[in-house]
Amino acid sequence: MIIKTSLQSAPAIILIEPRESGNIGATARAMMNFGMKDLRLVRPKDHWLETFTRQMASGANDILNDARVYKTTQDAVSDLHVIYATASKKRDMIKPLFTPRSAAEEMKNLIQKGARIGLLFGTEPSGLENEDVMRASGLISIPTSEDFDSLNLSQAVLLIAYEFFQMYLPSSFAEVSLSGKRSSFATQEEVEGFLKHLEEELDMANFWRVSEKKPDMLQNVRNIFNRICLTQQETQTLRGILKALVYHRWGIFSKKNKTS
Amino acid sequence: MIIKTSLQSAPAIILIEPRESGNIGATARAMMNFGMKDLRLVRPKDHWLETFTRQMASGANDILNDARVYKTTQDAVSDLHVIYATASKKRDMIKPLFTPRSAAEEMKNLIQKGARIGLLFGTEPSGLENEDVMRASGLISIPTSEDFDSLNLSQAVLLIAYEFFQMYLPSSFAEVSLSGKRSSFATQEEVEGFLKHLEEELDMANFWRVSEKKPDMLQNVRNIFNRICLTQQETQTLRGILKALVYHRWGIFSKKNKTS
Repeated sequence: MIIKTSLQSAPAIILIEPRESGNIGATARAMMNFGMKDLRLVRPKDHWLETFTRQMASGANDILNDARVYKTTQDAVSDLHVIYATASKKRDMIKPLFTPRSAAEEMKNLIQKGARIGLLFGTEPSGLENEDVMRASGLISIPTSEDFDSLNLSQAVLLIAYEFFQMYLPSSFAEVSLSGKRSSFATQEEVEGFLKHLEEELDMANFWRVSEKKPDMLQNVRNIFNRICLTQQETQTLRGILKALVYHRWGIFSKKNKTS
Repeated sequence: MIIKTSLQSAPAIILIEPRESGNIGATARAMMNFGMKDLRLVRPKDHWLETFTRQMASGANDILNDARVYKTTQDAVSDLHVIYATASKKRDMIKPLFTPRSAAEEMKNLIQKGARIGLLFGTEPSGLENEDVMRASGLISIPTSEDFDSLNLSQAVLLIAYEFFQMYLPSSFAEVSLSGKRSSFATQEEVEGFLKHLEEELDMANFWRVSEKKPDMLQNVRNIFNRICLTQQETQTLRGILKALVYHRWGIFSKKNKTS
């Protein structure tokens, strides 16, 4: 599903001392999947933009090319208004604690009021230093299984970017829709045509055995086919199947007649 | 945030012809993060369980060790009741189309009714063959930006596993909470003690200048501190700051007095 949603004011993703080039590349890819563009790196290793970074970005080159590098977190966030820190470990600091979903809602509200937002992600695997967490007005923590709470850096970015993107989807996307060409649904008349045809053939085949049981059995048969929301093509296919089965039956009779 | 949620009946993740060992490892990690355990591989390459697979699994070894390998998709799904296919490309098949979120809701409902569920993921980068999509009772498609809809295989698994896990979180997790020790919040009496102390010192410092303006200005000052939801420790810190500032002021006077 490709969504035409413009996220001009999407949060900046700020990676502090990212160690693995692959994670920087995978972060760029995750950002681009969900409409984020502003990647900032604080003290990445030298030559962070290597072949493996591009491989993991898998085509999200614009984000890597536009990424800005800073010496300090302060420099990286100086033009932003509101900062959130991502934290897997418990911090003994009194700050609002968001899930990715509640943070996404809060961020959307703030962006509507003109705020520029930055999301801080710490180094692998230890996470953010308290010095950086302190800058944040809130913490974002991703709920994970108790068995295994170690999320990869780029996967943490992915989940938060994904939740942010969800906030901008048309509400219709929350509903279950149907894939394929909707225009080709069969009309009730077409479905009824097939069901009548089927009933006639079953009459001729003495399918119902006892005539009193026919109404209930017919209702069950009709329910099966009505539940599928048939398309025109499928209805034609079913009529074809029915004809073929009947033809086959008569064909055997014909052969038998010939050989007898 | 670590969640003690038991997902005994979480869906099986079925990777069909996965090409990259790294993706199998990262899939195992994503599954374990969100309480899924049942990994099935259809026709993986020989020696798929190599060092790089373990590296990318980053400790999710149980899932790799328990992973089952099958020759056909039919074999891989034979014990399951309901199958969903993940699909980024449009399919001209009439099937219910879910987002990861609406699929998670549907899956939870089905699991409560005793269904065992399987999620099919296709080979990188082309995705599922129609032959496999046909087995599914529904499609799951992840909404992405129009600029860049290519999701990595393990990231697609991650997002769907994440949404499934969300369904089992206590509803309180949807709300914004406070990190840190909640028990250490300051009582209103303690906050009031600080604010009274501040007011007295500001009186003495002739801060309000014009006495008619004091009520409004005092209200502004009180609003600043009341908005923070102070802890006991923070309230003590503020009183310490206040005393120190006042002491400093009098200290200068004392020095002046001495030198004068």
